[in-house]
Amino acid sequence: MKNKAIVLLSGGLDSTTTLYLVKNKYKCFCLIFDYGQRHRKEIENAKNVAKTAGCKYNVVKIFLPWKGSSLIDKNKKIPYNKSGSIGGKIPSTYVPGRNTIFLSYALSFAEAIGARKIFIGANSLDFSGYPDCRPKYFRNFNRVFKIGTRNKNIKIETPIIYKTKKDIVKLGTKHKVPFELTWSCYSGGKHPCGKCDSCILRAKGFKEAGEEDPVS
Amino acid sequence: MKNKAIVLLSGGLDSTTTLYLVKNKYKCFCLIFDYGQRHRKEIENAKNVAKTAGCKYNVVKIFLPWKGSSLIDKNKKIPYNKSGSIGGKIPSTYVPGRNTIFLSYALSFAEAIGARKIFIGANSLDFSGYPDCRPKYFRNFNRVFKIGTRNKNIKIETPIIYKTKKDIVKLGTKHKVPFELTWSCYSGGKHPCGKCDSCILRAKGFKEAGEEDPVS
Repeated sequence: MKNKAIVLLSGGLDSTTTLYLVKNKYKCFCLIFDYGQRHRKEIENAKNVAKTAGCKYNVVKIFLPWKGSSLIDKNKKIPYNKSGSIGGKIPSTYVPGRNTIFLSYALSFAEAIGARKIFIGANSLDFSGYPDCRPKYFRNFNRVFKIGTRNKNIKIETPIIYKTKKDIVKLGTKHKVPFELTWSCYSGGKHPCGKCDSCILRAKGFKEAGEEDPVS
Repeated sequence: MKNKAIVLLSGGLDSTTTLYLVKNKYKCFCLIFDYGQRHRKEIENAKNVAKTAGCKYNVVKIFLPWKGSSLIDKNKKIPYNKSGSIGGKIPSTYVPGRNTIFLSYALSFAEAIGARKIFIGANSLDFSGYPDCRPKYFRNFNRVFKIGTRNKNIKIETPIIYKTKKDIVKLGTKHKVPFELTWSCYSGGKHPCGKCDSCILRAKGFKEAGEEDPVS
């Protein structure tokens, strides 16, 4: 019997590729978050990805009334990336505590069902500079997991953290990721806006990998 | 103007005493959690405590469908403490990831409103042996906070972590804690059961401090 694992799934390129990387080795339980994100439509994408991958999923509703991010506050604007440079200053789309909240739910889920791995598709190369996506953040969180649980063997795994977006698209292609089911754009309109950090990073990845993005 | 702080408030003895210890020094925002606990009535106690202390509060709803604890799973029984010994084996009332989830919401709240302190009434002497109540858990979590946020100065503070229940009752008495508004029993009946770990620890504290518990 396969070991159980939790996979954080947003329905985007990175988390979907992560799921496809590990779904044959582990019995994966996907965790999808509805946290008031502007691009709520990604939740439907995530559900479809989980179903297509043959995995069970839970959608967890998170209410952050204090907001603090343009990604969940409709009174703020999603920044359009004009310079093309990404990863310098932390942008307004950063959601305070988001990955910490996501991973703490994953920890609870893992311990309750006896899973020992939590996979997250975080990436620290082609990323928006969010502090909670960097390797040392996960390293330190793993220490908290070790100390703060009954089962001391639950570990966060970040298989694509050192991959470029080009590598991720190549890896996804190799593992037959259904790219057409994924959604990356922060704006959450009918079509990707093509101007936010997330769209720009995705386009760069497909272009450099020499693949066609079925979504754009 | 006072600095802002987040106070995790369960409506029990420890968190209420913690709030009263710091409420004059900081502008406190209380965070109350509705996580499917059997003793849901403590939520009303917590709200009354916050109001009485003159503090704003948020009630955050947390849904843990995977359960994994007798405190949130009505198909399991709350263990009655027969031996009187507490703090050995982790009991079934332990909720996987609970403090990690609570603190991650507090982190999000703190960063969004510009608070730098998060107070939690955790106690590592007269406690049930939960791994997420120990000093090294908080020390390590503080490192995650420092690395994983935009504002690197948000810190968890545990002012009563090395106090006995006797000390906490004495401290509460000194700071005019409205003990009559607090609730500790895990069973959540009309009256405290007097048999669960939480009731036993509370009774011990009042007895050793030579104070009368207005609730029992």
